[in-house]
Amino acid sequence: MSILASGDSAVFDEVQVASAGLLRVCEPPSGALAQFVQGQGPVAAWQAVLARRAPRAVVSATAARVDGVDPAVLVTRAQAGLAAAGRVAARLIGPDDAEWPAAAVSSFAGAMARGVRGAGPPLALYVRGRPLAGFPDRAVTMVGSRASSPYGTRVAGELAYELARSGLVVVSGAAFGIDTAAHRSALQVVRSSAGSQRSVTVAVLACGIDRAYPEANRDLLDVMVRSGSVVSEYPPGTVPARHRFLVRNRLIAAFGAGTVVVEAGRRSGTLSTAAAAGQLGRLVMAVPGPVTSAMSVGCHLLLSDRFAQLVTGADDVLAVLGRPGRAAAGADDGAVPGEDPRHPTDGLKPETARVYDAFPTRGSVSVQDLVVESGLPVAAVMGSLAVLQMHALADQDGPLWRRVRPGRTG
Amino acid sequence: MSILASGDSAVFDEVQVASAGLLRVCEPPSGALAQFVQGQGPVAAWQAVLARRAPRAVVSATAARVDGVDPAVLVTRAQAGLAAAGRVAARLIGPDDAEWPAAAVSSFAGAMARGVRGAGPPLALYVRGRPLAGFPDRAVTMVGSRASSPYGTRVAGELAYELARSGLVVVSGAAFGIDTAAHRSALQVVRSSAGSQRSVTVAVLACGIDRAYPEANRDLLDVMVRSGSVVSEYPPGTVPARHRFLVRNRLIAAFGAGTVVVEAGRRSGTLSTAAAAGQLGRLVMAVPGPVTSAMSVGCHLLLSDRFAQLVTGADDVLAVLGRPGRAAAGADDGAVPGEDPRHPTDGLKPETARVYDAFPTRGSVSVQDLVVESGLPVAAVMGSLAVLQMHALADQDGPLWRRVRPGRTG
Repeated sequence: MSILASGDSAVFDEVQVASAGLLRVCEPPSGALAQFVQGQGPVAAWQAVLARRAPRAVVSATAARVDGVDPAVLVTRAQAGLAAAGRVAARLIGPDDAEWPAAAVSSFAGAMARGVRGAGPPLALYVRGRPLAGFPDRAVTMVGSRASSPYGTRVAGELAYELARSGLVVVSGAAFGIDTAAHRSALQVVRSSAGSQRSVTVAVLACGIDRAYPEANRDLLDVMVRSGSVVSEYPPGTVPARHRFLVRNRLIAAFGAGTVVVEAGRRSGTLSTAAAAGQLGRLVMAVPGPVTSAMSVGCHLLLSDRFAQLVTGADDVLAVLGRPGRAAAGADDGAVPGEDPRHPTDGLKPETARVYDAFPTRGSVSVQDLVVESGLPVAAVMGSLAVLQMHALADQDGPLWRRVRPGRTG
Repeated sequence: MSILASGDSAVFDEVQVASAGLLRVCEPPSGALAQFVQGQGPVAAWQAVLARRAPRAVVSATAARVDGVDPAVLVTRAQAGLAAAGRVAARLIGPDDAEWPAAAVSSFAGAMARGVRGAGPPLALYVRGRPLAGFPDRAVTMVGSRASSPYGTRVAGELAYELARSGLVVVSGAAFGIDTAAHRSALQVVRSSAGSQRSVTVAVLACGIDRAYPEANRDLLDVMVRSGSVVSEYPPGTVPARHRFLVRNRLIAAFGAGTVVVEAGRRSGTLSTAAAAGQLGRLVMAVPGPVTSAMSVGCHLLLSDRFAQLVTGADDVLAVLGRPGRAAAGADDGAVPGEDPRHPTDGLKPETARVYDAFPTRGSVSVQDLVVESGLPVAAVMGSLAVLQMHALADQDGPLWRRVRPGRTG
């Protein structure tokens, strides 16, 4: 699916028109529509929606925008959306496109199977800028408060710079505060590494790809299109609405191998991204801050509940993600880390590695066996098992635990 | 064992002389000497040490200070030590005294049985000020860096004030920085609560009870003697030495139900107190801070390894200790909290309480059973089990877990 021409007079192929139409007839996420499109393909699904011959759940999900509307009008609107995208040099990609983030999107299927609400995958994505690549394995999500403190802004900037320099794509929204600090710092890396076609930073919007929100970040988004990518699942022209930020957050969470929360107030929307990351099986990290700062309350809640792993810098993030500390070693800007042959426990904390090494080569063992073998207290063993499980290096086998060989899962 | 009279001409009873002598002939901690004294009583043990008729381990532990010394000289030195203590109005207490912190000291036996090095209990304690009481159940240990930042000093002061106001005894050293901030703030509570005989704050010294170290804190220690207590296991005249701070730290850790680390550098001695608290089965807590502050690195290490529970204020500490949030409710200064009839999960985080409630009334269950019943992810269940185990509300039964009824264990 590629744009054949851009501008109002463009001729679009039927897959494009179908995908643009499908994005427009249903407010995302809709698990029912996504499953229907996946089964039928976008063209057949689009025809069925227009003819009201789709399964009841799909008819219901699309009723508000389809019932009583002439199908020809819906097709015209889909074409107009593609034209509007073309005017900002955006393309519409779907599962058949090479840059479709299939590995990241696949995690929604698992979440839907577990009954997670709102875990419907995107049907297609509008993209501006460089091709999407590296989701989720070579990407890290950074989120935080719009009203960040100078402390949070500084930490987000340093983290994003070092993580981008380590070869990771930084994923965030396009809000003021932490999002902006992360994108701006990641962009510094690209400027010192001319010639690379890899995105260093990706913004996922809660509005149409042809809009800038907040308006003051229009220049930032334009710069990002040159050195990174801007993404939206919303039809061009869609205005940002409160619920769209929450829906958008699931994409931000899905695109990174882990989500780092830099600053968040007690009721911050940022926490919804952390929750989505957890539901999608992504690693969740949080940066602590002064207990006297309201902007760190959300991070401390995540850490206090042990929902998130504490990180104090890029090396910690790389370690949690299971990557060697490239930031400290001075990585080649163009290199992709984590592809060297290495021991599965590289980057893990010594205690966690000790628990991993306490497993027998084959078979399952009890927590108590691991306590005896590792010589660590039971609480430490259990904490380490949770970390190993997150890394897909250990898994439960009834009441017992077994080591997972790297590469067999996740 | 009480002081019959004070001053150089005092006559001391034989238990006092024996205890003072035993403290002087061996650098603490000595598990061998402690067990011998526990078995024989101090008077018989002292006679055996003087006559070199003690078990080989005891003879070995006391050789450096006994061999070749006239026993009469050793007795005279013990009496001189008691006299020096009397001159600063210090008393020497042992296991037969009402104020002996038996419950706190008993935890050393468990640690010794588990082979923890340096877990020998104190043989006796010199005490100035108010009677010792409430160790460890109604006491909280606060430790941190000598070179605390303004942030750490502020947080330590606020925490100590609120915890003392909630009826807890604050236990710390007498160093600059966090220790001093904690003592000073706790003392504010006493000043507004005249008539109470309860210590609000207790300093444990790494030198003789008749010395002030650092010298600049002499005034603070004198104030503490009026509203709190000062404690040392070292004979009067003992100078502070580096290793004595580490040995002293085990007492600081043992006296509180939990240890709160407010600020600590990467290699801070404070971390040895946290380690001792963990070895003694005490709760370990840490206050996060800016990741840009070297003084918070130690706290973040403890939190990152999940060795410590994150706390941001007095309510968090009270919750971790399993007490209702008296700080927020405005506690009666003289009241002892935590004695109201209440549900065993009061003060626990909702998630932890949910795991507790997921247990059957009788019998043992697997982690997986608890995951299914609670509806929480396995990592959350395991983290909660560790917390419940620390609170003695759950325990392992081979590979399974069982609920412990409150009051059945310590």
